[in-house]
Amino acid sequence: MADAPIFKRLALIGIGLIGSSVARIAMQRGDLAGEVVASARTQATLDRVRELGIAHRIEADLGRAVEGADCVMLCAPVGAYAEIAAAIAPHLAPDAVLTDVGSTKQSVIRDVGPLVPEGVHFVPAHPIAGTEYSGPDSGFTTLFEGRWTLLTPPPGTDEAAVEKIAELWRRCGSLVETMEPGHHDRVLAVVSHLPHLIAFTICGTADDLEDESRQEVLQFAASGFRDFTRIAASDPTMWRDVFLNNREALLEMLARFTEDAQAMARAVRWGDAAYIEDKILRGRKIRRSLIELKQA
Amino acid sequence: MADAPIFKRLALIGIGLIGSSVARIAMQRGDLAGEVVASARTQATLDRVRELGIAHRIEADLGRAVEGADCVMLCAPVGAYAEIAAAIAPHLAPDAVLTDVGSTKQSVIRDVGPLVPEGVHFVPAHPIAGTEYSGPDSGFTTLFEGRWTLLTPPPGTDEAAVEKIAELWRRCGSLVETMEPGHHDRVLAVVSHLPHLIAFTICGTADDLEDESRQEVLQFAASGFRDFTRIAASDPTMWRDVFLNNREALLEMLARFTEDAQAMARAVRWGDAAYIEDKILRGRKIRRSLIELKQA
Repeated sequence: MADAPIFKRLALIGIGLIGSSVARIAMQRGDLAGEVVASARTQATLDRVRELGIAHRIEADLGRAVEGADCVMLCAPVGAYAEIAAAIAPHLAPDAVLTDVGSTKQSVIRDVGPLVPEGVHFVPAHPIAGTEYSGPDSGFTTLFEGRWTLLTPPPGTDEAAVEKIAELWRRCGSLVETMEPGHHDRVLAVVSHLPHLIAFTICGTADDLEDESRQEVLQFAASGFRDFTRIAASDPTMWRDVFLNNREALLEMLARFTEDAQAMARAVRWGDAAYIEDKILRGRKIRRSLIELKQA
Repeated sequence: MADAPIFKRLALIGIGLIGSSVARIAMQRGDLAGEVVASARTQATLDRVRELGIAHRIEADLGRAVEGADCVMLCAPVGAYAEIAAAIAPHLAPDAVLTDVGSTKQSVIRDVGPLVPEGVHFVPAHPIAGTEYSGPDSGFTTLFEGRWTLLTPPPGTDEAAVEKIAELWRRCGSLVETMEPGHHDRVLAVVSHLPHLIAFTICGTADDLEDESRQEVLQFAASGFRDFTRIAASDPTMWRDVFLNNREALLEMLARFTEDAQAMARAVRWGDAAYIEDKILRGRKIRRSLIELKQA
């Protein structure tokens, strides 16, 4: 017999890659929530959700979407959170759990925290999973399998609420860990935000080459560049918001990276073969560690 | 009926990812060369080639390896070419075709060109294909399928010799084009060499983080970082030699990239959302072009 649903009604605000994956899992398993309500910014997305049949109910109005829901999950770009929180706050059920899936956590606590009504439990979360695709068609039920979800509840958050969100993610196939929000933002700056910034940038650098070379860049794209363009195909609004909302950590990691790239440039210019080899070997070592940790 | 072999005897100097892939294709098809001879720097590699059965004959001695071969293909890291060319030059058959698979072409012409005996035809080539694996076990027969091989023959090179090498690569499944060596090095600096330098560097940047964060970087590696470490797992000697032998173009492209990354950093710091979005959209556009050109 299946476990009882964790929540009576789950309201998903935003139904792109992450939101629609959670919706699909919730509809398939039945033990995340008894009812799944989806809200989205555009009517086209709502219509598509209806066609896909990945929610019990769709609601264009944010207030109606969250009314009576004992779990509300923000799955929109983090830059939209403040406005969404202001719109839903008066309609949140007492004792509801408000959570999210955003890639930056200090900004979410800054933007949403002050708007959370007394009695509503705010549990910020971040499932570290994704592809370069976006929109309601891009989700799938195995997206979170074996991936980490980090919870960053502010001090004093109701422990039962935290445990419910942890259990929700475990049922999505995820491994769950709790982390301090600032530490989360710093770690994610290195493992995800900086790599994306670099991938977007190098595509622009190539696109700026004079016409003849640019055509050939595309024609002869070797494996290195192909991998970068895959990352660079990610959702523009989501990533713009991530960069702007993890500014400090991202700029610090980019500064460190730039120093290291300049040191490598110097080694190339002066023919320091030992330095170059050492750096390449460190890359291999990290790769090997990743494989041992089964994240590659 | 199969076509007649292009060459009587093909001598492969170096038998890693590329060399052992060519060897496998030559052994399987039979129409690249009547006989395949493999030479390698270490006895361990030679023993492994024998076990794998991917050459008719193995030769530790470079002179004996090339004697009587009407095609000699250098498949070693480009930094070893000058020494190899000096060792084989006195043993090359008159009218033999000497070719290579190196990722840098101006340096190869600089290092090997002056050592090529009168009557031997030198056809530098570069199959743009690879994986992050290396050594004789890593090769496979479909590595070059649908990929480009660029030929960069110096002016005056015997056209029949160039056509034989072009035909060899076509039979390996490759698309073939001729390019000016300097232009080759510039294009490859962007599509391959710079992405590898960046991937090696960011792995080092992560590895330099204080111990607690580093462990978490590995544990929570999101998709962005995973792709970078895949690239970064590539062969250290090969890539060290590529960087040192395409110095000028690589440093210029890194300088352009660094300018662009600094402009992005400035946009992040000052909250220039439109600039950031524009750069991300360009990444998407390049990705789409690549997919249309079937290189992704």
